[in-house]
Amino acid sequence: MKKNLSSIKRAYLAGFLDGDGSIYVRAKLNSDYRYGFQVAPAIILFQSAKDRSKFEEVCSLINLGYIRTRNDGILEYTINKIDNIIEFLKLVEPFVILKRKQVVLMKQIIEQKKKVKQQKDFEALLKLIDSFRELNYSKRRKIRTLTL
Amino acid sequence: MKKNLSSIKRAYLAGFLDGDGSIYVRAKLNSDYRYGFQVAPAIILFQSAKDRSKFEEVCSLINLGYIRTRNDGILEYTINKIDNIIEFLKLVEPFVILKRKQVVLMKQIIEQKKKVKQQKDFEALLKLIDSFRELNYSKRRKIRTLTL
Repeated sequence: MKKNLSSIKRAYLAGFLDGDGSIYVRAKLNSDYRYGFQVAPAIILFQSAKDRSKFEEVCSLINLGYIRTRNDGILEYTINKIDNIIEFLKLVEPFVILKRKQVVLMKQIIEQKKKVKQQKDFEALLKLIDSFRELNYSKRRKIRTLTL
Repeated sequence: MKKNLSSIKRAYLAGFLDGDGSIYVRAKLNSDYRYGFQVAPAIILFQSAKDRSKFEEVCSLINLGYIRTRNDGILEYTINKIDNIIEFLKLVEPFVILKRKQVVLMKQIIEQKKKVKQQKDFEALLKLIDSFRELNYSKRRKIRTLTL
């Protein structure tokens, strides 16, 4: 992460996130974890593989995650470490328009996760995670072609 | 269009365009037109219908086009008047990273279109329009689910 990222670049990244990014937390069933679930927050930016070098340019502004190529050829830039997510949210939060609620909810979940001491705390956390579903998805998942 | 749109807002819009926008020119067969084709340039921003009010907030920054709802529920903000396209490109051009080539090509096509005087000029224009295909689409069109 470049420490002195200008407001211009931060606003650009907020626009990119609003346009084609995703903010979510998944609770994955996993018996290795104390309460039976792994809590996995992530911020993802997408792009067509055609623009890889330019997309890398955008991602290098952030430098808090990694790029992977999906089977369908779409590139995903994933930020999934808690500290990196917090750092990225700090950068874009003042400029985000469409995903304000997701930003707030993600921060809230990260805070609550730290405070979990017993089963009922964890259940409250799961409820909070559930509310992401409401924010992110329509009842009917939409399919569209990627036009860049 | 707000005349004094800040660099911050312009950078945000450039990021939005890079993330989830489309810049293209179509040559549509149409015998009403002198050279047999209607040349239709457009800049489009997309968003899920779930976020309509926030998307309207973004579009109102621009105020150079109109919102329509597609059959699949996706919202499209379309800028298709030449003067408005030129104005929008001026706004975002300094901040665009991924779609720089498309911005340059669009401006070039708009310039050339003005200069068309005879059939061979128009054919050269059509060739230029064809080069958008190369920029915008992979050989295999990618389908992905819209995750916001």
